[in-house]
Amino acid sequence: MRVLVTGAAGYIGATLVALLRETGQVAGRRVEALALLDRQLPEAGDLSIAGDIASPEVLRRVADFAPDVCFHLAALPGGASEADYEAGRRINLLGTLGLLETLAGERAPVVVYASTIAVYGTALPALVDPSTPLRPPITYGAHKLACEVLLADFSRRGLLDGRSLRLPGIVARPSSGPGLASAFMSDVIRALAAGQPYTCPVSAQATAWWMSARRCAENLVHAAGMDLAGSDPRRAWPLPVLRLSLADVVATGIELFGTDRAGLVRFEAQPAVEAVYGRYPVLDDSASRALGLRDDGSARELLQRALRGLSCAPSRQAEPPRS
Amino acid sequence: MRVLVTGAAGYIGATLVALLRETGQVAGRRVEALALLDRQLPEAGDLSIAGDIASPEVLRRVADFAPDVCFHLAALPGGASEADYEAGRRINLLGTLGLLETLAGERAPVVVYASTIAVYGTALPALVDPSTPLRPPITYGAHKLACEVLLADFSRRGLLDGRSLRLPGIVARPSSGPGLASAFMSDVIRALAAGQPYTCPVSAQATAWWMSARRCAENLVHAAGMDLAGSDPRRAWPLPVLRLSLADVVATGIELFGTDRAGLVRFEAQPAVEAVYGRYPVLDDSASRALGLRDDGSARELLQRALRGLSCAPSRQAEPPRS
Repeated sequence: MRVLVTGAAGYIGATLVALLRETGQVAGRRVEALALLDRQLPEAGDLSIAGDIASPEVLRRVADFAPDVCFHLAALPGGASEADYEAGRRINLLGTLGLLETLAGERAPVVVYASTIAVYGTALPALVDPSTPLRPPITYGAHKLACEVLLADFSRRGLLDGRSLRLPGIVARPSSGPGLASAFMSDVIRALAAGQPYTCPVSAQATAWWMSARRCAENLVHAAGMDLAGSDPRRAWPLPVLRLSLADVVATGIELFGTDRAGLVRFEAQPAVEAVYGRYPVLDDSASRALGLRDDGSARELLQRALRGLSCAPSRQAEPPRS
Repeated sequence: MRVLVTGAAGYIGATLVALLRETGQVAGRRVEALALLDRQLPEAGDLSIAGDIASPEVLRRVADFAPDVCFHLAALPGGASEADYEAGRRINLLGTLGLLETLAGERAPVVVYASTIAVYGTALPALVDPSTPLRPPITYGAHKLACEVLLADFSRRGLLDGRSLRLPGIVARPSSGPGLASAFMSDVIRALAAGQPYTCPVSAQATAWWMSARRCAENLVHAAGMDLAGSDPRRAWPLPVLRLSLADVVATGIELFGTDRAGLVRFEAQPAVEAVYGRYPVLDDSASRALGLRDDGSARELLQRALRGLSCAPSRQAEPPRS
């Protein structure tokens, strides 16, 4: 089994690579070769492809590697894509299209694609389910949705075996680099753990969908082996989530780290951030659960796992995060 | 008002151009300049842009023309896109993206985009409504859906004012060029009118969504002036349709053209064609009707209008049709 991870130096990518090295398995088969792709990669024993997924030379190296499974995480994040249309288009839309076209062929490799809950949009109904119309409120979400559609079509044609997972807010990123508009979800957890004051750009009542990076990585690996017989030909599923308010997360932080954490977090809601990132309703994720995908179990486990992930995560580069 | 029509030499394009010349109006304003874009164009008094929407030179000329309204009809049809991925990608996906990017700007011109009911997919529920999940069963539909998403995002950013209309089977095309998989819908009407035998690739019970080219052109023009305040941010609507079986159409043909037409049409259903083009259920098009879009009224009016359109349509080129 030959495995490629794009965005391998990003937060989720590094967590996934650590998991793959730990277990050595994907879809019940041994990982014989692991290739990591990112703009900059640390020296590693694995095959490294340093560069941009929009670069023809990088795609030539991907074609040469000929993976059986590709985890496609490389992306310019939401805030950065909104600020710089050209960059988001190059990486998230055309970069992904080029990667899919490079991988597509008779061998039909598995592509596990990190899509996003930003495909859903704002002003959501009280229950989000598979019939909820998709109205991405940011260009990042629009490009991810377009690529879900393209991946499903390659799968229908039998040239790829695609599985798009819509990732919720993944915590706790080691630092809030520029361009990641949902960074407050990680920032608040780190502040609670460190006992530092934090001003949150959404309200205490704001509800979001949460998952630890470790659980996310486990779900990505699981997705590569899912039996999709009879399942939705869109081949896109939201990850099962814990739906928690910021108040829930703060209360859990106090419970875990001590009552001195009370009062450390101030809420100064910014309406634009609140509207896009703080109004997630109940998610009907039963189809995802039926396929074996999982949430973190409880707010307590989420925070514990999120912070364990933090200690072994790589130090951040100065560049915007790539996944 | 400066108006651009892409795919202007195609069947729907030519019908639209004839209507624009007849009325001289779009969205309540006078058409001062009309530019026609297609791969090959006959000599005309209007400004002609001959070439491919994927060509940088063509896009430069589009930018120079600076339309207030663009009717974007140019496309490689469904069968041809399925047979030739590269060509469909170049025209329907990247060609459309390039056109949208060329038009996008502070002036936010209106873009009326000819999308397709092929975004819906097969195995549809008994009622198709705005919550029906979109599962394009052909690459043509996947690329059109991806472009609906991209156009909605440009509209959200305030750089275009997009309106995607999902076109049903438009009749009666003057000839069934290669690459148009739904050509049987036009072929059967022409055969009935001409009193010629015809073998239909779907069953008599097959149900499809029908519209005359003239009504389609009227809807396209209407769409340019629709007030979208409070409407779906996806900015995509199915055209209201007549849902008719092939048996309904044959019965109407007999009623219009005489009992000698009975028995002229034989049905030899091809399962693949029947699955994609012959299983359209009831459509809830109330949102489209509320915006003022319309169907042909009755099967009888559909056939009469479809055949009137035929007599004034341009003769077909040897190339595959472009819209």
